[in-house]
Amino acid sequence: MSLLVVGSVALDSVETPFGKADEVLGGSANYFSASASHQTPVQLVGVVGSDYPVEKLEPLKARGVDFAGLEKAEGESFRWRGRYRHDLNSAETLETRLGVFSHFKPKLPEQFVNADFVFLANIDPRLQLDVLRQVKKPRLVACDTMNFWIESRRADLLELLKHVDLITLNDGEARQLTEKANLVHAARWILERGPRTVLIKKGEHGAFMFTKDTVFFAPAYPLESVFDPTGAGDSFAGGFMGYLARTGDLSEANLRRAVIVGSAMGSFVVEGFSITRLLEVTRSDIEKRVAEFHRLVTFDQALT
Amino acid sequence: MSLLVVGSVALDSVETPFGKADEVLGGSANYFSASASHQTPVQLVGVVGSDYPVEKLEPLKARGVDFAGLEKAEGESFRWRGRYRHDLNSAETLETRLGVFSHFKPKLPEQFVNADFVFLANIDPRLQLDVLRQVKKPRLVACDTMNFWIESRRADLLELLKHVDLITLNDGEARQLTEKANLVHAARWILERGPRTVLIKKGEHGAFMFTKDTVFFAPAYPLESVFDPTGAGDSFAGGFMGYLARTGDLSEANLRRAVIVGSAMGSFVVEGFSITRLLEVTRSDIEKRVAEFHRLVTFDQALT
Repeated sequence: MSLLVVGSVALDSVETPFGKADEVLGGSANYFSASASHQTPVQLVGVVGSDYPVEKLEPLKARGVDFAGLEKAEGESFRWRGRYRHDLNSAETLETRLGVFSHFKPKLPEQFVNADFVFLANIDPRLQLDVLRQVKKPRLVACDTMNFWIESRRADLLELLKHVDLITLNDGEARQLTEKANLVHAARWILERGPRTVLIKKGEHGAFMFTKDTVFFAPAYPLESVFDPTGAGDSFAGGFMGYLARTGDLSEANLRRAVIVGSAMGSFVVEGFSITRLLEVTRSDIEKRVAEFHRLVTFDQALT
Repeated sequence: MSLLVVGSVALDSVETPFGKADEVLGGSANYFSASASHQTPVQLVGVVGSDYPVEKLEPLKARGVDFAGLEKAEGESFRWRGRYRHDLNSAETLETRLGVFSHFKPKLPEQFVNADFVFLANIDPRLQLDVLRQVKKPRLVACDTMNFWIESRRADLLELLKHVDLITLNDGEARQLTEKANLVHAARWILERGPRTVLIKKGEHGAFMFTKDTVFFAPAYPLESVFDPTGAGDSFAGGFMGYLARTGDLSEANLRRAVIVGSAMGSFVVEGFSITRLLEVTRSDIEKRVAEFHRLVTFDQALT
């Protein structure tokens, strides 16, 4: 089934304790697409400036990412410059230049409006709502968000919640949005406002999936070397949504598998800069890591 | 099989956002015993001052905790006063009065020296070594430790590591001891220095069990109300060691079950002050929570 993503297509410059990368592919839509394209073709909607090195998107095109929805606007592309310290837990943003992204008005090509699965990556909730008005009859709509929109666009975000089936956000954002310190309470608060499923990402501490009646937890894979944490959340979302779109199965059991596929993709992307590792890994690598996740948590509950 | 614990028997005064408790049962050996006694009888070695309300230990005696190794010394009992803020993640110590604990020399009663399973709770590594010299032929020796000993008794702690089969410590302590930020590296560093098994506790983020060839992860149970986090680590250890002592089975599969039993006990203790909840819960409550842990992490790895 078709999968659409709307988000940023950016250029990142990143410094970690292990190295530096300048002006590499970044942005939520790039990470999402690189990850999801292992499962299913992806339709991408975004904007770049006249200075964007579009030839760098070729490997994504080759993997089945359709850039028909990528607008080329006059001006500078979205750039992010950040640094991670030794603990790699939180990015320090050194510079954000929105460029053409600040005037972005997502416009879906005719051939994208029938998308079955839609991921509204972390952009202004007003734009996320705009996109929703353009898609016809999606089977599942998911959105992401961040602290900036929770603060500055709270009313729009609450309106958006009414129209999405699923939301992904990190634990700090969930607490900020709901003003609940306890994640179970935070998830319930969100579930009462629209989404049937809430995915709370805790970075190196894993992810929770809450529905009204169920809780599922996926650990983060205990990696020996985390090289660059940028894009982990969007790669997680890409694996998750890609797997759902490929299988078309929205059962609890399949949602759980999708969370694990997402976790696997999140664990790969941080092993290199930008989307490098996502372009390298194979279907077999992904299956192996899913099996490793299984070994990581499996126990026999029958107590002696 | 018999289970011995050496640790503190204290009086705690705790303040959390949800209430206050004054001079209640505390200390690692009390928490450990209350938890482990759901699985197997416990032999306790510790010290209290002449002011200790020993009648408060009756419920533990009734549960099969043998206090023959509890020395009564002249002077004041070990007291800890602490406070948890809104996020409940870290205790702020307001006061520690070691009292008679500062001159504690653990002395095992004759009937304890043949203990099969030994837990050396968080005390001076020199005393932990002293205890090891007194036990005859234990099947499994585990120890805990903390930042204070890592700083002030590093050489003794490294000596102790050579003689224990298993160590439990939290993630911050593992990083401090090994000077490795990455937990996989930290675990490997420890495994090279004696223990065959390393249990790294991450509080509300769960626990890892590392051996040379395997990694197991147990999440923390997503509780709706954490009332008082004090004693979670020792209750975890009590459930873990108690289950191993009861079953006498040291296979990987059984160690994994033991970690889950420990996690279940850790999830109960924080639902009330002191050991209250540990005294209330039944074998059936524990089994139910173990089943909930199973539902929490279970997924079918066969990808479509």
